[in-house]
Amino acid sequence: MGRILDDAALDLLFREARTHNRWQPRPVSETLLRAVWELAKMPPTSANCSPARILFVTSPEAKERLKPALSTGNRDKTMQAPVTAIIGYDLEFYEKLPILFPHEDARSWFAGTAKLIETTAFRNGTLQGAYLILAARALGLDCGPMSGFDNALVDAAFFPGGTVRSNFLCNLGYGDPAGVMPRNPRFAFEEACRIL
Amino acid sequence: MGRILDDAALDLLFREARTHNRWQPRPVSETLLRAVWELAKMPPTSANCSPARILFVTSPEAKERLKPALSTGNRDKTMQAPVTAIIGYDLEFYEKLPILFPHEDARSWFAGTAKLIETTAFRNGTLQGAYLILAARALGLDCGPMSGFDNALVDAAFFPGGTVRSNFLCNLGYGDPAGVMPRNPRFAFEEACRIL
Repeated sequence: MGRILDDAALDLLFREARTHNRWQPRPVSETLLRAVWELAKMPPTSANCSPARILFVTSPEAKERLKPALSTGNRDKTMQAPVTAIIGYDLEFYEKLPILFPHEDARSWFAGTAKLIETTAFRNGTLQGAYLILAARALGLDCGPMSGFDNALVDAAFFPGGTVRSNFLCNLGYGDPAGVMPRNPRFAFEEACRIL
Repeated sequence: MGRILDDAALDLLFREARTHNRWQPRPVSETLLRAVWELAKMPPTSANCSPARILFVTSPEAKERLKPALSTGNRDKTMQAPVTAIIGYDLEFYEKLPILFPHEDARSWFAGTAKLIETTAFRNGTLQGAYLILAARALGLDCGPMSGFDNALVDAAFFPGGTVRSNFLCNLGYGDPAGVMPRNPRFAFEEACRIL
């Protein structure tokens, strides 16, 4: 495989994409959300454990249930966004491993190991959240991910069973460039990486 | 922005890319690793906190230091890979927030809050690890990410200061398709997602 992405694709995914704070009044179809998932589900998780569980909050009623959990600075933009994805992770993900990773008894690696379950679910559910952000961008959507909310309130309102926990939120839609903040600096290679 | 990725690009990143287990004897240049970082550093982290710290293990000496920490099933393929990235996260990431997020006193949100620091570093360092995987694929590299290793041994050998912790490993190079396993199933939309 000698192929690499061209500059326009790299710009769309990585270089020119920005976190959005205001949204055009342009809806996001269910078909498009399904297409985002069809991409986001593909990249790797540990033993294919796939712990992410995603709620796409779109209706005014569901948005109102989310509102009390949002931090002040995230409230208006989230209520305005056509879609807010609640990215959660399932602490009972290992019950699905006989289907997801059928050639080994991977379920037995996790059953009864609370700390390993929590770490694995959080790590891999977060990887899948990142895949979702880039998959959404790949299909022309803008993203506005957020950690500023009350996880316990979201869990109580949206994941009442107790086995799924909220990780982060991500507004999705077509952003209004007027609401984008100036780009903050990133680390140079030497500041974050080393070659050994 | 009406642009979306074409099918070839979606295949490269999401649909046809696979986790690799055997590696062609083809080196990966430092220039290419730097180009991967220039992409991977760009997508969002919470308050631009950018906690990932990455060691690209390439030399036989450094590989030998990594070897004792690898699980049996990951040992040979990791020793064979031209590069093994140790993706870590810095628990003192917040000390850099005056540079990374200069318009607010974001450092004060974290100082002294051990649980919030740990959660934020792990979540955002993991997001950056996922960005790294997709950035590597975007530039034509194959990936083999792994959780099967002894984190404490890796931390002692590679992050002796105690403020950076290992998250996961990712072999990088040009994969040998003969070593790819059959694709495991992924969840259908209805199994992992809901629209509210």
